[in-house]
Amino acid sequence: MKLQAPKGTRDFYPADMALRNWIASQWVAVSQRNGFAEYDGPIFESLDLYKLKSGDEIVAQLFHFEDRGGRAFAIRPEMTPTLARMVAARANALAKPIKWFSIPRLCRAERPQRGRLREFFQWNIDIVGSDSELADAECIFVAVDFFRALGLTPQHVTVRINSRAIVTGLLESMAIPADRHAGVYAALDKRDKLSPEAFDELLAKLALDKNQCAGLVEIGAAKDAAGLAAIADRLADHPAGGAAVTRLRQVFDWLAALGVADYCAFDMGVVRGLAYYTGTVFEAFGRGGLQRAIAGGGRYDELVSQLGGPRLGGIGFATSDVVIQDVLTEFDLLPELESVLDFFVIDADATAFAGVLEVVGRLRAAGVSTGFSFARQSINKQFKQAAGQRARRVVVVDAAFADARSVEIKDMTTGVQQRLGIDELLNDPLRKLESGS
Amino acid sequence: MKLQAPKGTRDFYPADMALRNWIASQWVAVSQRNGFAEYDGPIFESLDLYKLKSGDEIVAQLFHFEDRGGRAFAIRPEMTPTLARMVAARANALAKPIKWFSIPRLCRAERPQRGRLREFFQWNIDIVGSDSELADAECIFVAVDFFRALGLTPQHVTVRINSRAIVTGLLESMAIPADRHAGVYAALDKRDKLSPEAFDELLAKLALDKNQCAGLVEIGAAKDAAGLAAIADRLADHPAGGAAVTRLRQVFDWLAALGVADYCAFDMGVVRGLAYYTGTVFEAFGRGGLQRAIAGGGRYDELVSQLGGPRLGGIGFATSDVVIQDVLTEFDLLPELESVLDFFVIDADATAFAGVLEVVGRLRAAGVSTGFSFARQSINKQFKQAAGQRARRVVVVDAAFADARSVEIKDMTTGVQQRLGIDELLNDPLRKLESGS
Repeated sequence: MKLQAPKGTRDFYPADMALRNWIASQWVAVSQRNGFAEYDGPIFESLDLYKLKSGDEIVAQLFHFEDRGGRAFAIRPEMTPTLARMVAARANALAKPIKWFSIPRLCRAERPQRGRLREFFQWNIDIVGSDSELADAECIFVAVDFFRALGLTPQHVTVRINSRAIVTGLLESMAIPADRHAGVYAALDKRDKLSPEAFDELLAKLALDKNQCAGLVEIGAAKDAAGLAAIADRLADHPAGGAAVTRLRQVFDWLAALGVADYCAFDMGVVRGLAYYTGTVFEAFGRGGLQRAIAGGGRYDELVSQLGGPRLGGIGFATSDVVIQDVLTEFDLLPELESVLDFFVIDADATAFAGVLEVVGRLRAAGVSTGFSFARQSINKQFKQAAGQRARRVVVVDAAFADARSVEIKDMTTGVQQRLGIDELLNDPLRKLESGS
Repeated sequence: MKLQAPKGTRDFYPADMALRNWIASQWVAVSQRNGFAEYDGPIFESLDLYKLKSGDEIVAQLFHFEDRGGRAFAIRPEMTPTLARMVAARANALAKPIKWFSIPRLCRAERPQRGRLREFFQWNIDIVGSDSELADAECIFVAVDFFRALGLTPQHVTVRINSRAIVTGLLESMAIPADRHAGVYAALDKRDKLSPEAFDELLAKLALDKNQCAGLVEIGAAKDAAGLAAIADRLADHPAGGAAVTRLRQVFDWLAALGVADYCAFDMGVVRGLAYYTGTVFEAFGRGGLQRAIAGGGRYDELVSQLGGPRLGGIGFATSDVVIQDVLTEFDLLPELESVLDFFVIDADATAFAGVLEVVGRLRAAGVSTGFSFARQSINKQFKQAAGQRARRVVVVDAAFADARSVEIKDMTTGVQQRLGIDELLNDPLRKLESGS
């Protein structure tokens, strides 16, 4: 019987795992240097938590199950509900702003397709407990800091930024009733993926008139500073919308001060589909053939209170290992990841083998990676095995080990050989050899 | 509505996460220095995979569910089936011995109790594709290497080692039929947790006679080298059992050569409950009040072929974050984990704030962790915030930044202040300051 990994999931053999770990290590490093602390929650949560945030429709997209007590759970499809739950539970005790990151494993019961698997890893960055536009700027800066760390330049990636509050202002100024706004956000979010006809059809379903539809198409095309100026003019008589423009301009100013203006652009086309965004929204797009959002997020000022906590403004974004791997592949930026051994210990003949184990045990205890052969075989074959495992240095244990406690060490890169006492070697295994070769 | 983490699972707030990450980092470091490569599989597998290995009874212990296509899956309760499946799928291509480790998140639908949660993390070490007793010794060495890394001495932890092949030889020499062996292994495995009466009852259920029962009790008490010698005598007329004793003695010899004999002891009481062990079995026990296995494993020479691959001998062990945390707590060996910031950048007054953002952006891009305040407030308050975030150094951006591009830097430990040009600072942010203070 041959069994495979479930469709839409991945086996991570060592080379795959090394790449996954490398991406995660970049996430950790960028998070920490930006002052974010890591958190995590359970892999499954109460099914109610997801219903509460996203409605009953969400259930079909989840892997859900019951325990023996009949309680309903689901494997987490996203991290935000867990974050909001954890923040709500300790809302008073946590110092604000809460700057947290997480690298959750997530599952969605969807049909697997390019860039969307049933199981994947996300990087979540969140700043909770601050309404400042500096939080918005910092959050976007973290995304750019990560792109730069990968070698992605403004030629590779653009962060398109908008504000839900501006969109809301425009809808209000066009007299589109509030109960249709969520539908319009969802329609605008899908616009890039739809033909003009399909988009018009979506708007017609929302019972918008021709002028309103034409207005929305025109608005959606506004881009860059000129586009934002035109939007500001439209909102001249709408105080809340005007304030939202002023706020977004401040975000752009802070992004410029942080040195990442060249990655960032205003784009009315970015609205984000989720209902809970309240202010700044943004998506990073690969500029190559990929043409897909590779990260996205926004401000959610009501979410924590919606999930049982006090009112705490927040902003966050997420990206996944799958899209990051895709974009790095497209731009040929994947790193070479080679596992190496610091040492490989061999015997000059089988009588010296107990000494091999002693040296192996002591080198490993000293913290350096060390291999040896399970098979007693010729020096040549052992050297070959060392090379196969990409050992940097080979330690030969011979008759002199029993008498003089010394070993022969060969640097596999330079070919230089030297004899060292075992205690001398163990005193500082790596440095001793750097200077010796 | 207040929602909590599901019973038997944990929320990892930053301090909890730091500890979990620290334990995992020890697992990674010890694995790598022993030459093991990391792998992983999906969080859920086909339900059949677990039934195939453990029988239909396992289903009640799993969180299982179906996808929309009616395929049955379960969240992984252990890693070994995934390992065997992955190895079987590439059995010919993988270089032997396969030395792999994994740090899987696992879930079991059991009643939560001390040391047993519904969700936990394991460390799995496996050597597959070698029948050598050196693989057995290396596997046990890795466990000890980890204990030593944590500061656990032979006074804290003992690794009790036995061989299934010896137990089988003894059962055969006592004329206990092969179809009852699995039952006897399970009974012997539970012996320490049972009263003598309950143990006798278990044996009686296996239809063993009085002599056989008495023999098993006596056998189970054999310990250390003297105990192994007595067992060897008993097996004088049983060639396979005798060979198993010789092999186990060789394992002890190699463990001594590797320098970890003081952690290791023969113990006939260690049998392991799982049906699939075929040779060396071992468990590490905390020697304090805990008196519980904190790691366990053994040789499984038929498992890969049972799950669809070729015959590949293997040996492995596992431990969990929960028991490791318990044992470290008991012996007061938990580390102090403090998150710190390399820099906190403040303004001398609000007009200098754009400069703060420039310095923050450049320090972070240079790879050093850097914080700043979202609120414009007095120097004193900003210093307080820096101290609250345990910043090592505070950078003050004042009027001189606009003119001379210089900043004032205060070492928060020594109190030493110095003025540096911003480019000079960025050239090597950490070293410059070490030497300057």
